[in-house]
Amino acid sequence: MDCIFCKIVAGQIPAIKVFEDEETLVFMDINPRSDGHCLIIPKRHYPTIFDIPEKDLLTVMGTSKKVAMAIKEALKPEGMIIYQLNGKVARQLVDHFHIHLVPQWEKTGADLKHGRDPGDLEKIKATGARITAALGFN
Amino acid sequence: MDCIFCKIVAGQIPAIKVFEDEETLVFMDINPRSDGHCLIIPKRHYPTIFDIPEKDLLTVMGTSKKVAMAIKEALKPEGMIIYQLNGKVARQLVDHFHIHLVPQWEKTGADLKHGRDPGDLEKIKATGARITAALGFN
Repeated sequence: MDCIFCKIVAGQIPAIKVFEDEETLVFMDINPRSDGHCLIIPKRHYPTIFDIPEKDLLTVMGTSKKVAMAIKEALKPEGMIIYQLNGKVARQLVDHFHIHLVPQWEKTGADLKHGRDPGDLEKIKATGARITAALGFN
Repeated sequence: MDCIFCKIVAGQIPAIKVFEDEETLVFMDINPRSDGHCLIIPKRHYPTIFDIPEKDLLTVMGTSKKVAMAIKEALKPEGMIIYQLNGKVARQLVDHFHIHLVPQWEKTGADLKHGRDPGDLEKIKATGARITAALGFN
């Protein structure tokens, strides 16, 4: 299996994990569009919305809702962009179904273009820890 | 109630409907980013991901999956962008939770910027009818 997200699930490469249960995993995007940008994935490998069974999709969405609430609690964003890309033509970069949660503030701007710079890993870790802590309160 | 989507649900203003059940409604975006761009909404009014209960969110996602499959069947896109915006800062234009399905082809490009032109209503109606027809086969 040559999928980077499957390797994260298997613990073969590191990630800044925010939440994990039997079927889903949440980790920080290390090239974030904004402070708090994280990814929700099913542990099983499905490339796109067309491949993931409805049951697994709903499980991933349940986790996404919980994490969105935790981000709201922890980071107090003014808004949030949620997106999910399917296919190279839609600029899907990793071929494993994933949902982006991107908290927004007036100062960050609602920029959905790609071409991001790597983030500050220590800062991303600290933000991830705040989201994880807030998950306990939702 | 001054919500344009609630008025569409109530039949007080017209829309190009693609699908409807007890809890969800799907209609074409009349300022489409691409051929087939449609919106999935809960019939009940919730502004954002932070307001919609998990149960209603999952119902909306179930409908979204069905419609995505129907778009794939009917329009044979090369990919699909799915997004959902929360708050003015994220450029949410209508204050009623909605999910965008935007099929993608190489020629359309993965443009997520706003600033769209009104579409050709007859063409949009024809596309909507094709998606509705395909829903019967999924």
